[in-house]
Amino acid sequence: MTAAPAAASAPGKPGLAVSPLATPFPEIAPVPGVQLAIGRAGLYKHERADVVLMRFSAGTTCAGVFTRHNVGAAPVDWCKAALRATRGRAQALLVNAGCANSFTGSAGAQAVVRVMEAVATDLGCRDREVLMASTGVIGVLLPYGKILNVLPSLTERLDGAAWAEAARAIMTTDTFPKGATADCEVDGRRVRIAGVCKGSGMIAPNMATMLAFLATDAALAPEALDVLLREAVEDSFNAVTVDGDRSTNDTALLFATGRCGGPAIANPRDPRLQGFREALNAVCLDLAQQLVRDGEGASKFVKVTVNQAASVASARKIARTICESPLVKTALAGEDANWGRIVMAVGRADEPILREKIAIRFGPLWAARGGQVAPDYDEAAMSAYVKGAELEIEVDVGAGDASAVMWTCDLTHGYISINGDYRS
Amino acid sequence: MTAAPAAASAPGKPGLAVSPLATPFPEIAPVPGVQLAIGRAGLYKHERADVVLMRFSAGTTCAGVFTRHNVGAAPVDWCKAALRATRGRAQALLVNAGCANSFTGSAGAQAVVRVMEAVATDLGCRDREVLMASTGVIGVLLPYGKILNVLPSLTERLDGAAWAEAARAIMTTDTFPKGATADCEVDGRRVRIAGVCKGSGMIAPNMATMLAFLATDAALAPEALDVLLREAVEDSFNAVTVDGDRSTNDTALLFATGRCGGPAIANPRDPRLQGFREALNAVCLDLAQQLVRDGEGASKFVKVTVNQAASVASARKIARTICESPLVKTALAGEDANWGRIVMAVGRADEPILREKIAIRFGPLWAARGGQVAPDYDEAAMSAYVKGAELEIEVDVGAGDASAVMWTCDLTHGYISINGDYRS
Repeated sequence: MTAAPAAASAPGKPGLAVSPLATPFPEIAPVPGVQLAIGRAGLYKHERADVVLMRFSAGTTCAGVFTRHNVGAAPVDWCKAALRATRGRAQALLVNAGCANSFTGSAGAQAVVRVMEAVATDLGCRDREVLMASTGVIGVLLPYGKILNVLPSLTERLDGAAWAEAARAIMTTDTFPKGATADCEVDGRRVRIAGVCKGSGMIAPNMATMLAFLATDAALAPEALDVLLREAVEDSFNAVTVDGDRSTNDTALLFATGRCGGPAIANPRDPRLQGFREALNAVCLDLAQQLVRDGEGASKFVKVTVNQAASVASARKIARTICESPLVKTALAGEDANWGRIVMAVGRADEPILREKIAIRFGPLWAARGGQVAPDYDEAAMSAYVKGAELEIEVDVGAGDASAVMWTCDLTHGYISINGDYRS
Repeated sequence: MTAAPAAASAPGKPGLAVSPLATPFPEIAPVPGVQLAIGRAGLYKHERADVVLMRFSAGTTCAGVFTRHNVGAAPVDWCKAALRATRGRAQALLVNAGCANSFTGSAGAQAVVRVMEAVATDLGCRDREVLMASTGVIGVLLPYGKILNVLPSLTERLDGAAWAEAARAIMTTDTFPKGATADCEVDGRRVRIAGVCKGSGMIAPNMATMLAFLATDAALAPEALDVLLREAVEDSFNAVTVDGDRSTNDTALLFATGRCGGPAIANPRDPRLQGFREALNAVCLDLAQQLVRDGEGASKFVKVTVNQAASVASARKIARTICESPLVKTALAGEDANWGRIVMAVGRADEPILREKIAIRFGPLWAARGGQVAPDYDEAAMSAYVKGAELEIEVDVGAGDASAVMWTCDLTHGYISINGDYRS
């Protein structure tokens, strides 16, 4: 099977080639209690789906993690307030691509209200039980009338199978649709987790320009769901970075319909949730890694591990500094094993390190050891290694025993081209 | 006069086109007490000068500002220790391009000692009175024998006129040589300040990949010199950023020969130094702006002003976040007036802002006001404005009354090309 062939004919933006690091969209079986529909509101000039409606069965609980961006966006403001008001309950979600509705003042907030009221009326629920997420250009008011126009045809078409279509409808500069799924057991009952996400540039820790929507038929009280989602996000969506830029609209939502049966589990530390926790973490990590694989212009998928740091936070900061260094990223794009730039990035992270103990490996190859070039450094082997599409860089910094892992991609001409004329 | 014609035939790296933002090298008259010589040690494969020797008359004082990078480099370690040992006195400076001698352990430190001892012997001073600066690839041990070989021919050729040649000899990926000069009065005596610098990528606040060497014939005690240099660096070299990457070798040195006569002034607040302070600040700012104009691949010179911040530090952090955002920089490269990305960068700086008060101007044009698109927003005028080579972006953040200014350039295909194969 070739990688994600469907995306090649329906990318978020015409003319973009599918990432060479793309993975195929998985088979996602229906999640009991979840229905989806996609449509075209016309938020893009060219022909493509741009809205998704998701409907959840009665009693569905919901948790969300949102951008820590100081500006935020109208749909993010709405979701936070709605989840507070309902104490973690939701009946529907509407997502649009083509307009972020961020930095749009009270008119932007009003546009969200109009859409939420219309969805609530159509589906027979309260407007606070409907959530919204938007992605696209910042500073443009949502033309909500276009969404209201397409809404009736969405509610008609709701069914359990449209995960792949939904993944495609929320793409912006993504070149392939992103999805992941896993089955697990909770208290002897088989449950499913499924999710889709989008994001390609403006991807950084503390929520990327990233929308992720996950659903499960497990029965989980909102307080348990919230903890499980936050923990999963920490080591997945918050452990990837494309360019260090962070969006106003980042949103990850997890819906639990409870249709697997049984009483809702309220304690996130309940041992019956161990399998669910692992499956959720795996689904989130899979989705997050797909974001990096579709990093704008990416030609390399790079795993950066930092060991011997003074703390996990310190290890993460050093890893992020390596991952976001333009000089490291361009060297990797040029397939130049310029490991001195890793040294540069380690040192400018402003974290405790012991220069005499710094060691750097590219895959199995030593570049540096004991604070200088490794005695067995082999330039030819290193050059061959960095020609690979999937790279692992490991750095020991000699200041402690904490580790962290982060994933990133290289910085290529493709990134410049994509972002030089994003709005056209 | 065309911009920097000499650089076109002798760039630091063959084949690089001269930056379209280049400025011509100024006429720099000799500074009494300062002699220079350049030579070729052969640290590059191609034909070019790669070492500079500067000699200063007896009694010269010296101050230095160095990288805050946690790894550092052998020549930086040497300079710090030497200036401490001499309490701010120096007789000579040796600079090489082509090898940073950073992350080279005790062998790297020993290489510096060998060069310093040789220079001291040739010039008849103590080795601690000789300083060193290196630039080039990190992690490669300095082949100091090549420098020792060329040293006799350098000491023979010392004269007061070789500023332009020195500026050229220290270039790496620079596409034009950088210099600045100013005359001023100290206590009724005419004095001169002259300086050269290099740097093009790995340019960020807290010292860029940047070497800057300034000299004056003013008579200044080391303690005054130190304060004056630190203050000048803060609003010049620490107010420019190309890519946010910071080098292991950054060094700014200011030498004062005292040859203008009169007793050395020891108090940096002495009112007789007002004219000198202003001239020094102007020379440093001129040099720093030339670094940005030669930012790797730069096609735009961009001044970013942040107003209404909670503090100067906050204003600087917001300005730096804008200046270093890959999405802002690529939009400018593409001449796309995507001001929403300024909003994105402002919000991700994690500094106090008042969303409802954010305003953004591109030159004289309002993009946003009152936390949303400006009512008089004119896309056609904005698009025309961003086609210019020199841009001014001004942001009000509504959280206080502090301001900061920072300069940067755009992020183009040229940056990727230059950095994808830097070592070859």
